[in-house]
Parts: sequence; C-alpha cells; structure tokens
Amino acid sequence: MCNEALEWLTSHAADVLAGLNQFLAIPSVSTRTEHRHDVARCAEWLGSELRRIGLTAECHPTAGHPVVLAEWRGAPSGAATVLIYGHYDVQPPEPLELWRSPPFVGTMRDGRLYARGAADDKGQLWIHLKALEACLATTGRLPVNVVLLLEGEEEIGSTSLPDFLAAHRERLTCDYIVISDTMMFAPGVPNILGSMRGLAYFELTARSAATDLHSGQYGGVVPNAATALARALSTMLDGEGRVAIAGFYDDVREPAESRRRELARLRFDERVFASEVGLESLTGEADYGALERMWLRPTCDVNGIEGGYTGEGVKTVIPSSARAKVSFRLVPDQTPAGVERLLRAHLARLPIPGVRLELRLLHGALSWSAERGTGAVGAARRALAAEFEHEPVAGGTGGTIPIVPELARHVGGEILLVGFGLPGENAHAPNEWIAVENLRRGMRAMVGLYQELAALRGRIGSS
Amino acid sequence: MCNEALEWLTSHAADVLAGLNQFLAIPSVSTRTEHRHDVARCAEWLGSELRRIGLTAECHPTAGHPVVLAEWRGAPSGAATVLIYGHYDVQPPEPLELWRSPPFVGTMRDGRLYARGAADDKGQLWIHLKALEACLATTGRLPVNVVLLLEGEEEIGSTSLPDFLAAHRERLTCDYIVISDTMMFAPGVPNILGSMRGLAYFELTARSAATDLHSGQYGGVVPNAATALARALSTMLDGEGRVAIAGFYDDVREPAESRRRELARLRFDERVFASEVGLESLTGEADYGALERMWLRPTCDVNGIEGGYTGEGVKTVIPSSARAKVSFRLVPDQTPAGVERLLRAHLARLPIPGVRLELRLLHGALSWSAERGTGAVGAARRALAAEFEHEPVAGGTGGTIPIVPELARHVGGEILLVGFGLPGENAHAPNEWIAVENLRRGMRAMVGLYQELAALRGRIGSS
Repeated sequence: MCNEALEWLTSHAADVLAGLNQFLAIPSVSTRTEHRHDVARCAEWLGSELRRIGLTAECHPTAGHPVVLAEWRGAPSGAATVLIYGHYDVQPPEPLELWRSPPFVGTMRDGRLYARGAADDKGQLWIHLKALEACLATTGRLPVNVVLLLEGEEEIGSTSLPDFLAAHRERLTCDYIVISDTMMFAPGVPNILGSMRGLAYFELTARSAATDLHSGQYGGVVPNAATALARALSTMLDGEGRVAIAGFYDDVREPAESRRRELARLRFDERVFASEVGLESLTGEADYGALERMWLRPTCDVNGIEGGYTGEGVKTVIPSSARAKVSFRLVPDQTPAGVERLLRAHLARLPIPGVRLELRLLHGALSWSAERGTGAVGAARRALAAEFEHEPVAGGTGGTIPIVPELARHVGGEILLVGFGLPGENAHAPNEWIAVENLRRGMRAMVGLYQELAALRGRIGSS
Repeated sequence: MCNEALEWLTSHAADVLAGLNQFLAIPSVSTRTEHRHDVARCAEWLGSELRRIGLTAECHPTAGHPVVLAEWRGAPSGAATVLIYGHYDVQPPEPLELWRSPPFVGTMRDGRLYARGAADDKGQLWIHLKALEACLATTGRLPVNVVLLLEGEEEIGSTSLPDFLAAHRERLTCDYIVISDTMMFAPGVPNILGSMRGLAYFELTARSAATDLHSGQYGGVVPNAATALARALSTMLDGEGRVAIAGFYDDVREPAESRRRELARLRFDERVFASEVGLESLTGEADYGALERMWLRPTCDVNGIEGGYTGEGVKTVIPSSARAKVSFRLVPDQTPAGVERLLRAHLARLPIPGVRLELRLLHGALSWSAERGTGAVGAARRALAAEFEHEPVAGGTGGTIPIVPELARHVGGEILLVGFGLPGENAHAPNEWIAVENLRRGMRAMVGLYQELAALRGRIGSS
C-alpha cells in the first residue's frame, strides 16, 4: 500500500503543486472583514477537494468563519483514529510593497514556493490532503480512520473552535492528533515539537485632549498621547530583553535542566540564524541560549503602533490619541488572565499625568508541553527518519497554536506536532515560502506515519 | 476716508463672507503632492481677486508652490510702505471623520465660520484684502503704499521664500511688515505679539531585521524596531515636561524677568484653557507658568508615530522598521542645527542593540522676539484699542511662522504680528474656525491701522 502511494506522489508531483496554487490563490485573510467571503469560499473549496479524494466533508458555519470537518472511517475494526488539524486562514499580506511576487499567486523561485500561506498553514495542510489522496487513489483505503478538523480562525485566535469542539466531541474523539503547522529544526532535520509558547495579545490606547492640537500653540502645557504611549511601552521591557512588569516572572517556571541540555545538544548556529533575517547577531536575555529564549522564555513585543500624523511631510500636531498592539509570549505556568492583571497594575502605577491608558485583551492562549517518549512520538520518529534520513529532534516553538491545549482538553488523543516549514520561511511577513523538497518529503513521511500509527495499535495490543 | 471704508465693510458683510467661502473651498494643502494643482489654482484665484480690487498682482512660480506678489503704490510722495505677509496654503484636514462639517466648505455655526484655513491663515489674510478693498472701493486710494507677499508653503516650512526674498529685495523693501497669522489673547482682547518660538522638526526611523518577523517564532532573539523607537522617544523627555537630551538647555536663554511679569499680569485662566481642549488641567514644567511654558520655553513633541501592524484585529509580527515625527519648539538662543547636533549625540548614546536609528531634519526655523515699544507698536495699539475697546496685550505664541525672522533679515521693516484667531480655534486640527465677530472687527481695525501707520510717518517727520 505504502509503495503505491509513494509512486502516486512521484507521478502526480505537478498536479500536487497545481492544486496547492489554487488553494493559495484564495485570499482567506481571517482578520479582515472585507475578506469574509474569501474565507468562506476557501472552506467550500476545501470541502469539495476532500469529497473528490474520497472523504465525507461538511462546512460548519460558526459565529466567525466556517469549520471544515471531513472523515474517512473505513479502516479495519479496532484500527486507530487519527485527527488531523490544520487551518486554511492566513495572515494579512501587508506590507504589500515588500513582496517580490504577488502574495496570492504561488510563485516558484530557487526551489521554494512563495505565497501567503505557503508555510502557514495551507502548504502544510496540503501535505496531509495529498498523503491521504495518494493512499485512497491507489488502494482505495487508509490504514487508520481519519478525521480532518480544518478551521478558518487560527490567525485570529480560534475563537469559534472551543465551542465547536465541545459540540462535536464524540465525532472528534481520536487516538492521535497530528498537526503540521510548525517548522523543521533546520534543512534536512525533522522536528517533533516538545513545547509551544502561549500568547496574551493586547491593544493599548493612550488618550489625552479632546482633539489633536497645534504643537506650537499648545506645546508645553498639553499632554501628548503618542509620547505617553511610547513612555508606557518603554517601561514594559528593561532594554536587555527582560519584561519589566512587577510580578511577571512569578508564574514563570524555569526550564527543566534536562530540556536545557536537550536544546544545547541541537548545536544551534546563532550566526547563521541571525544572518538569515538580516541581523549581525541575536539579542535578548543574557542568561539563556537563543533556543531557550525563543522556546522556553516569555517575551514582550510591540506588534504595531500608530498615532498622530504619519503622512508625507510635516504636520505640527500634538496627537490626542495613539494606539499600540503589544503582546506577550507565555510559558508554563503563565496565563493570559494573569498577565493582563499584572499589566493593568503596571499601567496604573505609571506617572503619566493627563493621559488615560486603556487596555484591551484581544487574544489569549495557554502554552503547551508534550508528553515525552510516548509510542506515538516513536512512530513519528520512525516515519520522519525513514524519509528525511535524519533522526528528528524534539524542538520547541516560540509561536502559538492556540487550539493545541484546547484539543488536548476537549477530544483527548496524543498530540504530534510535525512541521515542514523552515526557519526564515517568513510566516506572517512578506515573501512567505515553503521548500518544495519539504512538501515532497512531508507527503511521503505522512503516508509512512499513518502506517506507523496503525502498526502501533497492533503493538500496544500485543504487548 | 476711514468712515466711508468702515461703512462699506458694514454694507458688504455678506459679500465679504461669500468671497471668503470661495477662498476656503480650494483645498490648498501644500504638504500633499496630490493637491499641487489646487495650491496653484488658489494662487491664481488670489491674484484675480487682488487685481479686481485694484492692485497689481503676479503669481511667481518657485521650485515649490507659487508666491503671489501684489502692489499698490499710489500713496502721496513720502508715504510709508507697508508689506502685508500671509499664506494661502493650509494643513491637511485629516482625520476627516472628526470634522462636524466638510473641511473645505465654509460652514457657519454659533457665530463661528468652520473650515480648514478659517483661522490659519485664509480667514486672517482675507481681513487684509477686504480692508484694502474697502478703502479702494470707496475712495480709490490708500494712505500708505502696500505690498502683499502671499506664499503657498508656510505649512511646509516656507522653503522657496528666502530665495524669493533675496531675488525681489528691492520691491519688498518697506517700513512696516504686518502679519495676521496668530491669535488674540482671549475673546475681546487683541494681541500684538511679543515673541514666537522656533522649530526643529525631525523624522526618526528605527530599523532592525531585513523584514517583519513572526513574533512567536522570533520573539526573544530579534530586536523590535517599534519597541526600540518607543524607547528612544521616551528618553527625550523626563516625564515632567523637560527635554532630557544632554546639553539641550545650554542654549536656552532664561525669560527676562520683565517679560515674565508682563505675562503674569495677563491673568491667564488655566482651568478655562484646559477645559476648552477637554482636559482637567494643564501639564508641563513645574517652575514656569502656563503662558511661559507655551511661549517662552522649549518643548519636545511626538507629532506622529507608526510601525508594524495597525489594522483590524491581531497580527503577531516583530516590526522591522518604525518611524516617528518628532519636533522641538525653540526659544532664543537655540538653533535647529544645534538641536539636531545634540539629538544625534543623544541617540548615538542610547543602548539599543541591533537597531539602527536614522534621523532626518525635515524643517527648521529660528525663534523671534519683537523690538519693544516702537512707534509701529503704538500705532497698532491705537488701531486695535479703538475697534476692540480693549487695550492690546503683548502676548507670545508658541507656534512658528518661519518666515518672520527671514523677513526681518531680508527686507527690513518693523514687524507687527496682529492676529485675529482665538484660543481653541483648532488650527492644524479638525473643526478649525474663526469668530465672525473678529473677522468683522479685524477688518475695521486694519483700516484704522493703515491710517495710523500713515500718520506715524508724519509724526516721526515732525518730531
């Protein structure tokens, strides 16, 4: 069964890319109201694809964007059930002027496929669809039962999914959850994720006078909202990468020594990593290695800021309001609510006369840590090692897939995070890409993984 | 002569406003390339108006926007020459959503005429045109020779005017320069300006990585340009209204005690002033009164800031660049070049690893102080007191008319800054207005001023 599927993938390589390009062409930007119709169209298109390759598939409307739920339940009695989670929504493409090719046209350059969503997450979701199709097209069956749970709100916090999980708990019950929305450790080095940071994302608004005022006539007596916002933001970090909010580190669990040693063994090349993003060197907390800072330590970043006059030339105003998006990556045992409480207290203590600071939590998600050394992890190790000819590492991610802790809570199943992006892939940035080689190997490894997970059930039964 | 002109103004009050509304309807936004044609059209329109009322008028092209130069030289031999300076360009109207009526439609509400440029400076320039027309239409003559110098680049730093002044020095030579581009001290209280602050306006850009990066994947190791910019800006002020740049106050001349006493006598009501702009109280340096802080002390204001994602919802990026407009109001003996030097040194000392800060001076202007107690000031006092039935005060302005020190340098003449705006007029902000009563009294007072200045020459001759 496996060989036929692998041969199918080889002979259909061009079709696989053509289909992905159709998927990438739909601008399913979930955060933008004007793309609402595109997001819905993308869900419908996915549903059709899934039905074409032999699954049942439904688009479930939610208060936000649709959830696509697809199933294939023809595996032999007693076979394991694998839930594959992915998301078909993407980040906004802006700033457009920095793209070398249009964000919604899949474009091949130097072995990479460029487009918004190429890595995050359409390309990686496509790996599973095509691995499933390869098996079904050649043998008419899969070695495991499969449920696909594909959402359109991952980039905006998976708002509707928890309710959906609760409402469809029985249909979603599974033995394993496979998610490909992360990165390989390096070119050629597969990665089965060991941990993931959480997120607390805020909007902070400063307000002063009733209206913007002339900075000459009023300068010296009227508080400036933009200056105040800059001041407030600058108090949140100490300049050396540590968050300067009182109590922030109280809930931060120190990384286990075993995990620190594991990461140290990865021999991460900071200089190469820095040069890939145009930097001379990396920055951050001096007491932690770069991988620890990215995966195991909390952060604070200003994601956006605006206020006053930002057009061409000169305008002499004192802005009456200014606004920032500021977010924290969280680690065990931090919670978004806990960070919000500390931040509110911090802002309330700032001596900024005449300016009101308003804080709004836009999105929160918990961090996650994998159970270590389970049978499922072993199955994934074997499948990935066979295809990539390299033993997978147990990396982390500094990013957040908010639904991971929710899935663990609602539908059970061991979670496997096996990603096929690469560092420098420009997820959430202009010129996002995925290596075509990793698309190819990823599909083959997933065909192998379904077999390995099927075999695992046999092993468990016989042990 | 004077009475006939005043009667003409009374009987033509509706025409005067109708003409001003035509002037206000031309969106002569000098800072925006897309309004270049509107600025040129505004100059042509002004030239026609000036010729219609009996002056010669030419629109002189410059590297930027045209200068309108108009003359009437029919006064008796030995009569004084008065140069009237004004500007027909306006600030951008944004943010548009905060205007209660369209910015380029003169709209009357509660005795105020609302429009962009109503106060700054079209309305005030109109006062002079109509005072001249009143005299010429009724008697065919003026008691003084008059030159009008009307520019279209005041809001963008009067870039072309110094060259124009140098090239036309002889035609511009005059005894008095009258400028109405400032405010009365309070309703009913006229103001002959004693001082004006200068300006140094910068753009500050922070740059880090080659592109925006995912704040999850890279957070903790990559410098954030928006955070760095906020930090840099927050170091420029000490939180109590004092500029925190080393050496900044070395060139700042302390206000003369006599001038401080003069301002103290104005019995400025801080609470009323604050409430007019929607504030509970004023802020700033504790050691100086509010008028001193606005008129005699230097300031630093962030005029605009932008970076990263500022759209709807959530986007988790580390901005690779962020940009602010930041400006300083200057007092004697500061210079824009001096402030630029100090600011560059300040930024170079900031410990912001991995971020490049780029500074660009967009516009600079010196401060100005009036000669005190001259004959021209006496003439203006008499003309204003007669019409407003209140002795004028010698206020200051925190704003900057960059050309004032240039005029003093190039064409000589005693400078009189007599303004008819009012505090709260929203110059440079949405819902700019001028009180119709002050338009009316202003025109009448200017008819009187031309007479007083003519008489002065006689007095000087006879003393």
